[in-house]
Order: sequence, then structure tokens, then C-alpha cells
Amino acid sequence: MATRISIEDFDALGRAEIPFVELLGYRVDAMDEGVATVRAPYDERFLRPGGTISGPVLMGLADYASYAAILSRIGNVPMAVTTNLNINFLKRPTPGDVTATARVIKLGKRLAVCDVFVHGDTDAASPVAHVTTTYSLPPY
Amino acid sequence: MATRISIEDFDALGRAEIPFVELLGYRVDAMDEGVATVRAPYDERFLRPGGTISGPVLMGLADYASYAAILSRIGNVPMAVTTNLNINFLKRPTPGDVTATARVIKLGKRLAVCDVFVHGDTDAASPVAHVTTTYSLPPY
Amino acid sequence: MATRISIEDFDALGRAEIPFVELLGYRVDAMDEGVATVRAPYDERFLRPGGTISGPVLMGLADYASYAAILSRIGNVPMAVTTNLNINFLKRPTPGDVTATARVIKLGKRLAVCDVFVHGDTDAASPVAHVTTTYSLPPY
Amino acid sequence: MATRISIEDFDALGRAEIPFVELLGYRVDAMDEGVATVRAPYDERFLRPGGTISGPVLMGLADYASYAAILSRIGNVPMAVTTNLNINFLKRPTPGDVTATARVIKLGKRLAVCDVFVHGDTDAASPVAHVTTTYSLPPY
Repeated sequence: MATRISIEDFDALGRAEIPFVELLGYRVDAMDEGVATVRAPYDERFLRPGGTISGPVLMGLADYASYAAILSRIGNVPMAVTTNLNINFLKRPTPGDVTATARVIKLGKRLAVCDVFVHGDTDAASPVAHVTTTYSLPPY
Repeated sequence: MATRISIEDFDALGRAEIPFVELLGYRVDAMDEGVATVRAPYDERFLRPGGTISGPVLMGLADYASYAAILSRIGNVPMAVTTNLNINFLKRPTPGDVTATARVIKLGKRLAVCDVFVHGDTDAASPVAHVTTTYSLPPY
Repeated sequence: MATRISIEDFDALGRAEIPFVELLGYRVDAMDEGVATVRAPYDERFLRPGGTISGPVLMGLADYASYAAILSRIGNVPMAVTTNLNINFLKRPTPGDVTATARVIKLGKRLAVCDVFVHGDTDAASPVAHVTTTYSLPPY
Repeated sequence: MATRISIEDFDALGRAEIPFVELLGYRVDAMDEGVATVRAPYDERFLRPGGTISGPVLMGLADYASYAAILSRIGNVPMAVTTNLNINFLKRPTPGDVTATARVIKLGKRLAVCDVFVHGDTDAASPVAHVTTTYSLPPY
């Protein structure tokens, strides 16, 4: 089945309503029902000691990918909000784009849960982070 | 006992080495041995739908407070890196400054764990988020 | 204020309704409004390689302490259920009793969050584990 | 590639060294390099209010499946120990067997991370819980 919000509409929502998204340059690569891939194009401001991408860039990206994946299931419901996020950093991402692919693994009336993998473009083989997110949903 | 890195030295490290810190304007309010409070001065770019502070701003702040708390114990060791972060969002922070206070609850040879509470300035009574972080430590 | 369920009533609920509690011998040491301490009396069946207490014993104990702390706020509502639990093991507990002290840090209409420290009796100074739990609440 | 510890050897380790495993009756269904499925045969002692399987049974099972998956990569190294476990309960498991399938998503020199799905036998379509685990590894 198809996503219940188009990439264009989701991108417009993100840019209009979430300045953080605009600030970091996140954009949607792909959306399908229950799954979304979001990209953070490389930016020198993302670096931290050791020449790797800063953790909050990855956390924000995984959170945004989850938001996209959930809205792909429930439609344009901006007030879905994160209640829990757990991230394991698996290896140091080298400078370059990073993408997060979120998949909805539970969609209830009040809560949704996503499983998210974050990859660096320079090494697609193994993820740089794994994230789980929980969203609280308004009536939809 | 006193912190093993001064606020001035830690702030200098953050601004010099972590552009994300500069970008979001995080700054240290207080440091003592094993505990640190870091502030995100309010910025309209932090908002998200519903008029609350965006989650990644709080995650980044809690992570940075943990980094400060750990360096207050082990000194200027920039290569301490986050391996896990778990955040529970407890209530929606209204527009205004937010602060994160991190406390080291375990310091081993290889891993450190922090317990972090995030508060909004407009309601000091109850936290807006609770975070736990784990850092992997190089030999120190 | 006082707890909204007595230790006796909570212990009776646990023993009657949760065989796992009876199986592992958990019992309540103390309850006050929004905080509870639960004990796992030492049992050789709790050990794992290295002569320390097995992780699931601590996870179950922290979960049960959270249940007690939440019911101390909302009264006898058995259908409060865990939706998320995050545990960091801080050091290896030596053989002996362990206790978990849970504190409610958020109580909403639908979700409650607890902060839990687990201690071994043989070393009260530093915790053996730190846990956060989220419960989904039925109408109460 | 094949597992670096046989099901028989792993089961023997579990039963000999971890009384909790024997107590709850966990047993290995399948192991391959980097992945393991462990089963908790249904037992009335697992129930909690609402007639569902108690959370600690699932947490212990996911932890044990992770231990199996990691040892399938590094061989018989009993002193691998859990440092973090995060569980999201996705739906209430009805009475019946439950299985946990753990997959190693990062194997470093000091840390390993697993992604684990827990399923009930009565509804294989959707998971009852999702878990991530981190293990600290001795030199191996």
C-alpha cells in the first residue's frame, strides 16, 4: 500500500513547522507505508572530536525518520510526539551523508514504535547506529 | 573535590571541536566533580509543532551535559564517546531556556554512565525529560 | 502524603496475581507516595557465570518496584502495564540481597515514568544498576 | 558460516551456569553465526494480571537469546556480560510459548550489540516485544 502522506507534503510540513529540520538540512529520500528513509546531507558543522559525525545529528535524523514512517501510516497528524528514544552508536561515521531508515513495528491507538537503522553513505554494509523510538499519538 | 576540567576549558573545547554546540548555543552553567549543568538559551529555531522545544535539542543538550560531567571526573579527554542514550520525554517544554543536569553514576575504566534531568526555566518544579547516557572511554 | 495502596494490599496483589513475584521471592520493604523499595532476598538460583546476580532478577525487581511506586500514586490499578524498560548494569552484584528503589518522575493520564536504582546489600554506597520504566495506565 | 558454539554446548552452559535459565525452562531452538532463537515453553507461572505473559520472562528470554547470538560469533566466552538492555512491549502476549530471535548488529573488541524480536507462538505475524542489548566482552 502507499504512504498516507506524500514526500512533498511531509517535506513541506517539516520545513514549515520544524526549524531544526531546516537548520540541519534533513530531507526525505523515500517513503512507503510504514517505512521512511531520511537523509542528512554532509555538513562540516556536524563533526565532533575524532572527525566523526556528532551524535545529536544522528539522533535527530532517526527521530525525523520515525515521524515520517508513522505519518506514512496515519496521515498528516503533526501532533504525534516522541515519548522515548533509545540509540546505540555502533561505529564512528566518517564524514559524508548519513541516512536513517525507520520502520513502524507497532501501531496502536495511542502509541507507535519504530525500529531505525542509520547508515553512512561511505560504508553501506554496516550501520553506524540503531535506534528505537516511541511516539504518543493524538486521536487519528 | 573540584572538577578536573574548568568550565572555561570545557567551553573552549566544545566551541572549538563541536560545531553543533556552537550552532545551538549550548553553554555550561556549572560544573563540579561528577556533575554538570548545561544550558540551551532559547532560540525560535528550537520549536516544533505545538509550540514546544524540539526533541533533538534536548537530546543534544543531555549528551553535552554528560560529556561535561564525565570530563569533570577524568579531565580533558575529548575522545570519550557516547555509546548509548535513552531519553524519556516527560512533558512538553514551553518556549524558554532549557537546562540539563548530568550526574556520573558509574565511572569504570572503559565505560561511564550518567543520569540526566532536563528542566525548563519556566517550570523548575518538574523535569521535561529524563536521560541516561553511556560513554566509552579511551585509556585515561 | 501517604501511599494510596498499603504494603499489605500490594504484596497480596503481587503474590496472588504475579506468580513470577512468588517464584523469585520479591517483597516490598517500603512504600510512600510515589516511591517504593522492593527486595529480592538472596537465592542461589539467581547466580550467573562470574558468581554475580543474573540480570533478569534485577530487571524483574526494578519493574516490580516501579509497579509499586505507580500504584502508590494511583491506587489498586492492576492493569497498569510496562511499555518500556531501559537498564544499565553498573557493576557486578556480589551474592546477597538486592533492593530496587523506584520513584515516579512523571504521572500523566496515560503514561507514568519511573527512575529506579538497584543496590546490593553488601555495598550500599554505589548502585549495581539504574533503570527507567514507562507504564501505560488504564483510566484511573 | 556456522556458529562457533554448538546448540548442545550452549544449552549445557546455560543449564550448568545460569540457574535462572533452568528455572524458567528456556531452551535454544536454533543458532547460526550471529543469530539465535530461544524459546520459553509456556508455564502458568509466567502470567500476570490480564492473563498475559509477565514482562521479566520476555526480558530474560531476549537477554539469553542475545547471549547465544554473541557466543555464536565469539565462541564459548561465558564472561560476556550485559551492560544495557532496552525493551519495548508492543502487545500483550497471550498464553503460549514465546520465542526471542537475536541478531548481532555490531561486534567490536569490547562491545557487542544485538537487535531482538520476541514473538508469541499463537500470533507469528506481529512481535510482542522488541529489545536491544549491549554486552561487554572480555578479551576473546
